[in-house]
Amino acid sequence: MGNNYTIKDIAKRAQVGTTTVSRVLNNHPYVSDEKRQRVLNAMDELNYRQNLGAKWLRSASTGLIGFLTDEVATTPYAVDIIRGAQDAAAENDMVIIVVSVGGDLPEIEEAIEFLLERQVMGIIYAAMYHREVHLPDNITNVPTALANCFSVDASLPSAVPDEETGAYRATKVLLEAGHTRIGFINVIPPSTPAMNGRLRGYQRALSDYGIPFDEQLIGTSDFALHNYNETQRLLNLKNPPTAFFSGTDRTAMATYAALRDAGLRVPEDISVVGFDNQIDVALNLLPNLTTVQLPHYEMGAWAVRKLLSGDNEIIQEKIDCPLVERQSVSVLDSVNIQS
Amino acid sequence: MGNNYTIKDIAKRAQVGTTTVSRVLNNHPYVSDEKRQRVLNAMDELNYRQNLGAKWLRSASTGLIGFLTDEVATTPYAVDIIRGAQDAAAENDMVIIVVSVGGDLPEIEEAIEFLLERQVMGIIYAAMYHREVHLPDNITNVPTALANCFSVDASLPSAVPDEETGAYRATKVLLEAGHTRIGFINVIPPSTPAMNGRLRGYQRALSDYGIPFDEQLIGTSDFALHNYNETQRLLNLKNPPTAFFSGTDRTAMATYAALRDAGLRVPEDISVVGFDNQIDVALNLLPNLTTVQLPHYEMGAWAVRKLLSGDNEIIQEKIDCPLVERQSVSVLDSVNIQS
Repeated sequence: MGNNYTIKDIAKRAQVGTTTVSRVLNNHPYVSDEKRQRVLNAMDELNYRQNLGAKWLRSASTGLIGFLTDEVATTPYAVDIIRGAQDAAAENDMVIIVVSVGGDLPEIEEAIEFLLERQVMGIIYAAMYHREVHLPDNITNVPTALANCFSVDASLPSAVPDEETGAYRATKVLLEAGHTRIGFINVIPPSTPAMNGRLRGYQRALSDYGIPFDEQLIGTSDFALHNYNETQRLLNLKNPPTAFFSGTDRTAMATYAALRDAGLRVPEDISVVGFDNQIDVALNLLPNLTTVQLPHYEMGAWAVRKLLSGDNEIIQEKIDCPLVERQSVSVLDSVNIQS
Repeated sequence: MGNNYTIKDIAKRAQVGTTTVSRVLNNHPYVSDEKRQRVLNAMDELNYRQNLGAKWLRSASTGLIGFLTDEVATTPYAVDIIRGAQDAAAENDMVIIVVSVGGDLPEIEEAIEFLLERQVMGIIYAAMYHREVHLPDNITNVPTALANCFSVDASLPSAVPDEETGAYRATKVLLEAGHTRIGFINVIPPSTPAMNGRLRGYQRALSDYGIPFDEQLIGTSDFALHNYNETQRLLNLKNPPTAFFSGTDRTAMATYAALRDAGLRVPEDISVVGFDNQIDVALNLLPNLTTVQLPHYEMGAWAVRKLLSGDNEIIQEKIDCPLVERQSVSVLDSVNIQS
């Protein structure tokens, strides 16, 4: 009864480890041709071919890629990661199986086991906000790539947003328009890659334009009223900003409201730039918000292409966050500068 | 060689149609026990059991549900349909395979074929906005349920938002607060279930409270500036509204801006209610927006549970859109009514 043989039996007969057998079953690229042939021969001899895995092995591919996501969606456009992964999979006549998991290791481990049983070609792990992740060891049984997150020990390839360059671009568009007093209301919680990277980008742009960093111009925001109050606080400085860089497009909503309530027009009196390009927000703000694009779609597509490339170099790919120019920035009136 | 037999061979031996064989392979509930047994016997005799489909048939379930979506996401929270479907699938130790398709029939047909080959237990078709859909015939080879859409001939079970009752609730909360002049800026395009249902709910609420319908108070909005102008137009009426019902939370953003620019405070001077409960918008508007919840999650979960229930009644389930009360409605000052 060939069907009763296990991976261990094949490994023993082929004189390889079970990991190698698992990799052959999963069409994993990191197996030498010689070992792959020994495993296939052993499977033949044991009539293992009747098994699901072996059946799929005979065809060009299993057609399935596992897609694990955490459940915290800080911006709804993070689902574009799924769309990017789907499109890249479709290019190769494959589909993705989406499984949502919470953050704890045993649950993730179980979900990976589930996907391995279904003979996925590889696994994408995607986070809904940019962060470090801890993943169980069994994920290494199959090619894996991360999107919008990175592993603690940098042992897996990953695509993350280039937060620093994005924030540099957001700040630069204001500097180029002549603004030198730029209020920056950063995202929280502290020490996230988003908060740190965006602050670095803001500081680097100021430095490149010879503008000293002024801690007074920095605020943080987590909810709308907080952000409204931070905007007011910066407006009440002795030397207030002439422009705002909002940590996210959502926080720009309260900044717009605070500016309207202060009798200030965007962009005539004050310029605003956001971050995320969350279009339901950016296009419903009046004037429409100039912002920086989070590359969700690109990260999902990159991760799938990395999986299927057979290229086993472990890299962290920083994906560009391009500027999306709309109507919320104007050139600083030189009269204002002098006054 | 059992593996070379086709569904047609089994159908011939079992003296049933190929559809019946396909349904047995897919664990479709709409097959009589007697026919199912004949098909299983024929598969046994032909040694068809070695085949992928039959292998999975022996286990309790295939573990897979196909999830087809269109690509137009009008509100990012429509992805909660996927989340609802995932959670309902997980309750039954199953996962969903998500496949995005465009709107044309051949593409959908191909995607369904792809899913059928993978022996899915059933297919969910989900639309990203509430609408009528045309689906190819091959979808009837497997249990199917629709979410956020309905089939032209009402031949498939579906879950849709109860637009009319939702709009009734939004209007009622304003009527209960004493408002009788309620501006309604409806969503477009015309003749969609959302536009028609929301208008009916608005009219029915007015009627129940003895308030005559005034066409002057109706606007439509597709983009932010349009909505801003419609809000201004209604404010300039000889007898202007004291409250607004916004067709979506996103359009409420421009309504808020127009009110601020007119020197009117929400809710002290004018009340606003939205529709969708798109929380990134509703919670970043100041004051936070009272609105009505689109039941995306519930529609996805309902569709999966319907699939797995074995209950073959074709119904269109209207899922409740509950009111979510926040800070944008206040009781109309009686002094204002008199003046």
